Amino acid sequence: MRQSQLFTKTSREAPKGEVSLNAKLLIRGGFIDKTMAGVYSYLPLGLRVLDKIKNIVREEINAIGGQEILMSAMTPKSIWEKTNRYDNFDALFKFKGIGDKDYVLGATHEEVVTPLVKKFVNSYKDLPIYVYQIQDKYRNEARAKSGLLRGREFSMKDLYSFHTNQEDLDEYYEKAKEAYFKIFERLGLGGITYLTFATGGVFSKYSHEFQTTTENGEDTIYLCEKCKVGLNKELLETEGKKCPQCGNEDLVEKNAIEVGNIFKLGTKFTQAFESVYADKDGKQQEIVMGCYGLGPSRVMGSIVEIFGEENKIVWSKEIAPYQVHLINLSKDSSVSDKQYELLNKSYIEVLYDDRDESVGVKFKDADLIGIPMQVVIGDKNPGKAEVRFENNEVELIEIDKLEKYIKEKYVR
Amino acid sequence: MRQSQLFTKTSREAPKGEVSLNAKLLIRGGFIDKTMAGVYSYLPLGLRVLDKIKNIVREEINAIGGQEILMSAMTPKSIWEKTNRYDNFDALFKFKGIGDKDYVLGATHEEVVTPLVKKFVNSYKDLPIYVYQIQDKYRNEARAKSGLLRGREFSMKDLYSFHTNQEDLDEYYEKAKEAYFKIFERLGLGGITYLTFATGGVFSKYSHEFQTTTENGEDTIYLCEKCKVGLNKELLETEGKKCPQCGNEDLVEKNAIEVGNIFKLGTKFTQAFESVYADKDGKQQEIVMGCYGLGPSRVMGSIVEIFGEENKIVWSKEIAPYQVHLINLSKDSSVSDKQYELLNKSYIEVLYDDRDESVGVKFKDADLIGIPMQVVIGDKNPGKAEVRFENNEVELIEIDKLEKYIKEKYVR
Repeated sequence: MRQSQLFTKTSREAPKGEVSLNAKLLIRGGFIDKTMAGVYSYLPLGLRVLDKIKNIVREEINAIGGQEILMSAMTPKSIWEKTNRYDNFDALFKFKGIGDKDYVLGATHEEVVTPLVKKFVNSYKDLPIYVYQIQDKYRNEARAKSGLLRGREFSMKDLYSFHTNQEDLDEYYEKAKEAYFKIFERLGLGGITYLTFATGGVFSKYSHEFQTTTENGEDTIYLCEKCKVGLNKELLETEGKKCPQCGNEDLVEKNAIEVGNIFKLGTKFTQAFESVYADKDGKQQEIVMGCYGLGPSRVMGSIVEIFGEENKIVWSKEIAPYQVHLINLSKDSSVSDKQYELLNKSYIEVLYDDRDESVGVKFKDADLIGIPMQVVIGDKNPGKAEVRFENNEVELIEIDKLEKYIKEKYVR
Repeated sequence: MRQSQLFTKTSREAPKGEVSLNAKLLIRGGFIDKTMAGVYSYLPLGLRVLDKIKNIVREEINAIGGQEILMSAMTPKSIWEKTNRYDNFDALFKFKGIGDKDYVLGATHEEVVTPLVKKFVNSYKDLPIYVYQIQDKYRNEARAKSGLLRGREFSMKDLYSFHTNQEDLDEYYEKAKEAYFKIFERLGLGGITYLTFATGGVFSKYSHEFQTTTENGEDTIYLCEKCKVGLNKELLETEGKKCPQCGNEDLVEKNAIEVGNIFKLGTKFTQAFESVYADKDGKQQEIVMGCYGLGPSRVMGSIVEIFGEENKIVWSKEIAPYQVHLINLSKDSSVSDKQYELLNKSYIEVLYDDRDESVGVKFKDADLIGIPMQVVIGDKNPGKAEVRFENNEVELIEIDKLEKYIKEKYVR
């Protein structure tokens, strides 16, 4: 993409009405635009990042057998009444249509997926089933001041698993945990994201959150440095300050952002929808269920919140909007033009700063956009390109070896 | 994908409460599920088709310079008041949030995109701009009985173009027309989809619809067989029965489905949002706008409506959920298992019927699912596979040449 063609522009000024670092940087960089409090549109650079995050999530959920579907956002009142959540889930957006029909905007999809899956299950042979979607959710949040961290409209990957019994659910739940750790590793949140014990429900002592530690985090967790797991505040208040795995009481308090959560629902929803299967003896049994959430837009905001600086975003290479930021500083653009064409032909994703702007403007914009590999072509080192990494390492590479260098060193 | 693993199943019975052929077939085939009237969820096979349609649209809109964004579905009341559509666009879903704030679910996005693009335009040098999104739209339709053809929640590609003047808009409008014809050609609707003249607005004598002729179509158009263009009923009633291009009065009446529409908006929306640019002399001028809609879910329904039969869907190869339907009829599945692995490794998309079902059930299901190439491996022709095409052609291919055959003959 030629930057001169990109319709968005960076901005030096902090946007009005935004307090969070992620919203400030993402708006200034031209990644997102605020429609209103808690509601954002994704601009070309931002949509590329969001889609890359979604694809990483998709790949890892497919790898544990997830079958992707896309449920409707509009839902009828009746299904929420069946589970007693129409009046008890206070973040629901409710509205009316033709004939005074009552609708609810999907804030979560247990009420849709449970009767949907029921239609395809007769016997134990039809189970287990793992289905997920990546879709926008709507919640009437009281406070929406954290940019992409807490939106009224936000993207969510929600996976639901359906089993014949608790043991089968338990086994899949462990697989899902592993998949989540792979996802966070690939997103660049490995090593700082902890499995965190939270209160469970009727069917399980605990549920689990995935909490990424960062100074700016809204949540507080208590880490057991021996087990590398945490517990959340609510669980600490009910069970005391003690590691749920080893009993260690010497826990470290940390701020964190919740980037995912998984929950053993048991038969809570399948009971409500009379969702049963025939076991080997032909006896009707209730289906046992689990749910697994992960918010791509929230992850996007978290990464900016954690790694961003005052005038700088740092994307990891798997989710950067482009793999390479090619920056021309020479009056004669023929060398960089040629490299741009060459890299494009090799399917390397390039944002090419071909604009007629000063060196200072170009570098400031590049830092704000945050592509972790900048390739600078100027007049200082004829025949060579300066390759700058986000860790401030710089290498001089002969221009005719540039394509090979990028492929070998950087693009996976 | 092994069909034994696919969580959906086909159904022999017509779904209750559906009158349209597309909804009946798509529900029976396990492509979609009805959440409520006019609102559907996409199941694994259906989501694959929908995503392929979206990707074809995306590629062709990118090719005419479109920059993809993703706008919010939630919008504030204020922007609809600015354009006088809050009370005049009768299909809007309106709802309330925290603090009694009024929201509108996006039924179209002129009100969002115009102020959004305005933020990035100062001078004539920043224009033209072409932005689009592929997103779900919400409309409070009075009647929603046509399956995917008229939904209350439906997917839409909406492209908006912004220009310094009418001539520049006119030029891009022609490019968009060509892109639309390429899209319909790739979707398998070439030759039966006609540019159809419709009434314009203040800024243009005509707007244009793309109408696909079919007996089941809800719309009526009048075709000039010389010019290969149509006019819609509304235009016929205002201008008389006469080809807008050549004046020919001998027009043929056809039923059709509207699969796209394009419109020169002029300054209707940019005026409302005071969206201006500085011309070469530094004078403020209003931006001139066009909009271009195409509904992927409606296209999906149309294709089933047009090419479907009582127990049969026919997808074209570019949008079939899988490229090949491999069907094992032998008790010994080792030969077909091996072919399945081999084709997967070659990145050929295969739905593999590995189920323990009768020949009759397998063929009935395969016809309903509608993948246009079926590869049958059974005991009748040892060492050979029977390749069946949707036009009833059959070829016997040696199994060790199958992969090469499929690649050469079929997969693009």
